[in-house]
Amino acid sequence: MEFMGKIIAVDIGGTHLRAALYEPEVTKPIIHKRIRTHADEPGVYGRMEALIESIWPKDGNVAAIGVASPGPLDPHTGYILKTPNIREWHNFPLGPNLTKHFKIPAFVDNDANLAALGEWRFGAGKGHHHLLFLTISTGVGGGVITDDHLLQGYHGLATELGHTLLDPKGPLCSCGFAGHLESYSSGPAIVKFVLGELEAGSHSSIKPSKNLTARVVAEAAMQGDKLAISAYQRAGDYLGMAVANFLLSFDPSIVVFGGGVSQVGSLLFDPFHSSLIKRIFHPRYLENLKIDMAALGDDAGLLGALALAQISV
Amino acid sequence: MEFMGKIIAVDIGGTHLRAALYEPEVTKPIIHKRIRTHADEPGVYGRMEALIESIWPKDGNVAAIGVASPGPLDPHTGYILKTPNIREWHNFPLGPNLTKHFKIPAFVDNDANLAALGEWRFGAGKGHHHLLFLTISTGVGGGVITDDHLLQGYHGLATELGHTLLDPKGPLCSCGFAGHLESYSSGPAIVKFVLGELEAGSHSSIKPSKNLTARVVAEAAMQGDKLAISAYQRAGDYLGMAVANFLLSFDPSIVVFGGGVSQVGSLLFDPFHSSLIKRIFHPRYLENLKIDMAALGDDAGLLGALALAQISV
Repeated sequence: MEFMGKIIAVDIGGTHLRAALYEPEVTKPIIHKRIRTHADEPGVYGRMEALIESIWPKDGNVAAIGVASPGPLDPHTGYILKTPNIREWHNFPLGPNLTKHFKIPAFVDNDANLAALGEWRFGAGKGHHHLLFLTISTGVGGGVITDDHLLQGYHGLATELGHTLLDPKGPLCSCGFAGHLESYSSGPAIVKFVLGELEAGSHSSIKPSKNLTARVVAEAAMQGDKLAISAYQRAGDYLGMAVANFLLSFDPSIVVFGGGVSQVGSLLFDPFHSSLIKRIFHPRYLENLKIDMAALGDDAGLLGALALAQISV
Repeated sequence: MEFMGKIIAVDIGGTHLRAALYEPEVTKPIIHKRIRTHADEPGVYGRMEALIESIWPKDGNVAAIGVASPGPLDPHTGYILKTPNIREWHNFPLGPNLTKHFKIPAFVDNDANLAALGEWRFGAGKGHHHLLFLTISTGVGGGVITDDHLLQGYHGLATELGHTLLDPKGPLCSCGFAGHLESYSSGPAIVKFVLGELEAGSHSSIKPSKNLTARVVAEAAMQGDKLAISAYQRAGDYLGMAVANFLLSFDPSIVVFGGGVSQVGSLLFDPFHSSLIKRIFHPRYLENLKIDMAALGDDAGLLGALALAQISV
């Protein structure tokens, strides 16, 4: 993994497009720029190309481009299959287009995989060889490093862990199927549970509203609201079940949590821990297992894209 | 993976201890011997050492020993943690003992992982880079090859897939926890379901008996017995749910089934296919996905141990 050229990393977020230029082996960028992903007119790709050009170094010495993109996508070909956040992309050759235009290799993977890669290389998972990353926010995403390799799979669709089935009779997931981890533990799932209980007559300080957020539920829980507490208990309980499955699948030495919902602390993680300990079928999985919060924050996508380009070039 | 020495492979089965001597890159052994695992007196390890000595080549040119052992075990250290089949082994340094005695490297992993490795290198999965192996018999075991690497994990306990939780309120598994894949789809789970239904008053040609086997249930199903058919339907339905989870975790290009219960054909695999297709949350996982039966039969353990020694030495 020795190389001399600079790397350009791009993070395609729901609201912002970010690009940064890095020197070899330095994680503080030489330059970093950010624009809005969506403008009045379409053309996300054109704006991205211009953004990259605007940070291109004078010496022209760029070895590769790494891109963190919303999925599903195919990291082996660099095609974005279809993504709800950028509707103009459908079987869109993002990687090939960048390579053609900039005449250097371009590597693409989804946000969760690259957050896993970034945390492993630069963040909470440094020094570990087997890492499980879970982001819990609007959705639930996963990424796995096994034996120092990013687990991508044949179609590049491995570790879509938010869609793990936990109960065939469970609530509907955003994907339309029932009983997935995401349908219990994501922010919208927590809100949906609270609204359902309110409608069924539960007492709570929370007022039913279509603008209710998981953060408002968390604040009510911290004030002692029983319904709010039970919503996070349920989210943590199912998260523990899911992680029990992930441990016996991937057997990591560290589990790293990112995403807004995971910021609430013990409200989610106390029930998570009880559930995991109660459900793991062999205690050895927990020996020396570290459970930690993501360290890279908003830079997870950019640094993951940097890492991807570094290990791929 | 170039090497010149011969390899000795050992398969520790519940009834037989087998050892075979292989030339480099040839899967037909020079010599193959088999003895009973359990004798009147203890000393499985001693019998194994003697068995290996009895096939040791005259030229003494052995590069490594590979061993397929019942688990749980630690493939990184070669220690057998504890195994119900060989009670005299408890934190037993199988790999280190062999290395010390024969003065060559010895590598150990569990049967299911090595069946996966064997099928990938020599059997049904040849040419694939991402393979999922599932054995369905008394228990349910799993093994995964991802990007041409055997997935072992930090403690060496990865891919214990029979203990995947599918329903927190499901039936008891052999491990004592509820709702695992093995508690729905293993041979004993099929028998237990039938006995429970008979006790509840279901009509069937099957007579309740503590000697009932999954094979007898399969024979009744082939004669049109509705209870027997429903028992396999249920096993296949849950197997499909579990494989939907495994596809989104590992995203293989081939799923290989081994083990006695998987020999029943469409009785299990028709409901399995319907369930998998109904539950996979993105159709792309099924694109070019091959589903096949294990090709190595009884030699899976030996050839897996051979493969392990070849790739490790």
